[in-house]
Amino acid sequence: MKHGKLIVSISQLTEKQRGEIAARAMQYGLETLFFDDIGDAMPHAEEAEIFFGSAPEFTQTAKNLRWVCAPSAGVNQYMTPGALPGENVLLSNSSGAYGVTISEHIVMTTLEIMRRQQDYSTVVAERKWVRNLPVRSIKGSRITLLGTGDIGREAAVRLRAFSPACLIGVNRSGNSFGQLFDRIVRQEEMDSVLPETDLLIISLPGTKDTLHMIQQKRLALLPDGAMIVNVGRGSVIDQKALTKELAAGRLYAALDVFEEEPIPLGDPIWTSPNLLITPHVAGNMTLPYTVEKIVSLFLSDLDRYAQGLIPERLVDLSKGY
Amino acid sequence: MKHGKLIVSISQLTEKQRGEIAARAMQYGLETLFFDDIGDAMPHAEEAEIFFGSAPEFTQTAKNLRWVCAPSAGVNQYMTPGALPGENVLLSNSSGAYGVTISEHIVMTTLEIMRRQQDYSTVVAERKWVRNLPVRSIKGSRITLLGTGDIGREAAVRLRAFSPACLIGVNRSGNSFGQLFDRIVRQEEMDSVLPETDLLIISLPGTKDTLHMIQQKRLALLPDGAMIVNVGRGSVIDQKALTKELAAGRLYAALDVFEEEPIPLGDPIWTSPNLLITPHVAGNMTLPYTVEKIVSLFLSDLDRYAQGLIPERLVDLSKGY
Repeated sequence: MKHGKLIVSISQLTEKQRGEIAARAMQYGLETLFFDDIGDAMPHAEEAEIFFGSAPEFTQTAKNLRWVCAPSAGVNQYMTPGALPGENVLLSNSSGAYGVTISEHIVMTTLEIMRRQQDYSTVVAERKWVRNLPVRSIKGSRITLLGTGDIGREAAVRLRAFSPACLIGVNRSGNSFGQLFDRIVRQEEMDSVLPETDLLIISLPGTKDTLHMIQQKRLALLPDGAMIVNVGRGSVIDQKALTKELAAGRLYAALDVFEEEPIPLGDPIWTSPNLLITPHVAGNMTLPYTVEKIVSLFLSDLDRYAQGLIPERLVDLSKGY
Repeated sequence: MKHGKLIVSISQLTEKQRGEIAARAMQYGLETLFFDDIGDAMPHAEEAEIFFGSAPEFTQTAKNLRWVCAPSAGVNQYMTPGALPGENVLLSNSSGAYGVTISEHIVMTTLEIMRRQQDYSTVVAERKWVRNLPVRSIKGSRITLLGTGDIGREAAVRLRAFSPACLIGVNRSGNSFGQLFDRIVRQEEMDSVLPETDLLIISLPGTKDTLHMIQQKRLALLPDGAMIVNVGRGSVIDQKALTKELAAGRLYAALDVFEEEPIPLGDPIWTSPNLLITPHVAGNMTLPYTVEKIVSLFLSDLDRYAQGLIPERLVDLSKGY
């Protein structure tokens, strides 16, 4: 076995995309095998030099792996000990593929809460004609984006067009990204902006540093009536503390991610008032554009790999993203 | 009775707004009376020189009226014969107050359809964890806006931020409004753009010229899977023809307005598939910003009235808007 193989396990790929991947890999002397069901790939684990997919049960047995590319932005699936078969295995993600679809989810759910769309859907289900529920607007709202990566930035572009009072980005680096935000606040100074935040949008990864970053004390800093949209990871919010604020009618939320997924059947969050639940769908691969983008990002990192360069979207294993 | 009176019947006005209106009217020697219930205003009909509200049952008996300002954008309520007590009564509307709230409704409902939000709300109601419904995006969509007034233009500003393939405006005048649209098509050439329209947004008033403008033949011109969002008037669409296309699964729609409102209890549209119904709430006065804007537009036209000028938002009774 002179060269290893590229093993791909992403069921959403079109035939055309499979062809593109295989052709590019062949240019670099790599044979590509596609397995929509990861079970079928298991016998080929030792042949794998590169794996493109989300399957720690596969990668942990793939002793000759050199590079794993996750089609997701978050890589929690590869963070458990042993998921990667060695310290020198490169892990990259598909950060940059999800900003479009997740930012549309953010705007949609924000407006659904502001415009009482859950209440109006009940009105319509009962064939009533209630029209006078007080609504709110993105126009004039003070918006804080916790996380200014691809998702936060794509959301900022779209929200700007609705004339918010301000768009404040919170990040660790202090990077300002031109005129996209009105102001950038460092993560350690987050508490200074929460009292002036009508809408808090969270797009942080799930890491040890972000675990319960939004706990009871920070929730309490938000003004009455503030809204939270979480499209990052559920672990970022202390869910129990948030549920209390929702039950009290003090805060509103749209959550796409949860501390435990699927949400357990008996979990009280299912019946929380003032909460819009979506089953972790903001950034999956159900939008063709997203899959296109994942493939193009992978191909560009495959080019780098063939040149002996590290992937552009390399995950820092110590940070977890 | 040297001067007439200003009669105002808009229950959503705040105390501050009432004070502003009364103070400005007083500058012009007009006394203002506020009646949240129009029944209470009836004995004062003959004193009315100006009426600010939506109540044809009041205006038809107000023999000394000189100006009626409707707080709505559409003025169908004043179009029935006798609703205005004479040919020389000026009728103005509040066009310009609703673009913000209605454009947010347009973006919200568009995304709700594209992202299968009604299906996902069923999933969540059943406490299931389905995540793989195919979704669509505004990015790359070909959008046609039928109506390029305040509403169409505010919608274009917001939709542009989502990177559609194109934004085409359809109007009667050919006015292009700078760079807001990629192209303006005259109403008589509408049929040329319908076959290339993924999303048709309708914000036309209900007049004799717009009655069933979107009939079966035009619906048939739309490509498979196209979406219609109607926030104008229900009479613009042949509702029966649309319902057939929805039932066939060929088109999708979000309708805020209907041929008959409230929708009659037995109307089959209540159970139409591929349809998001809202009970005419896109542009009502439940958003404080809208009411602020209505008041400021009225006050500026009151200034003009006091100077002997016609209102800026004068309705052309022959056109109906």
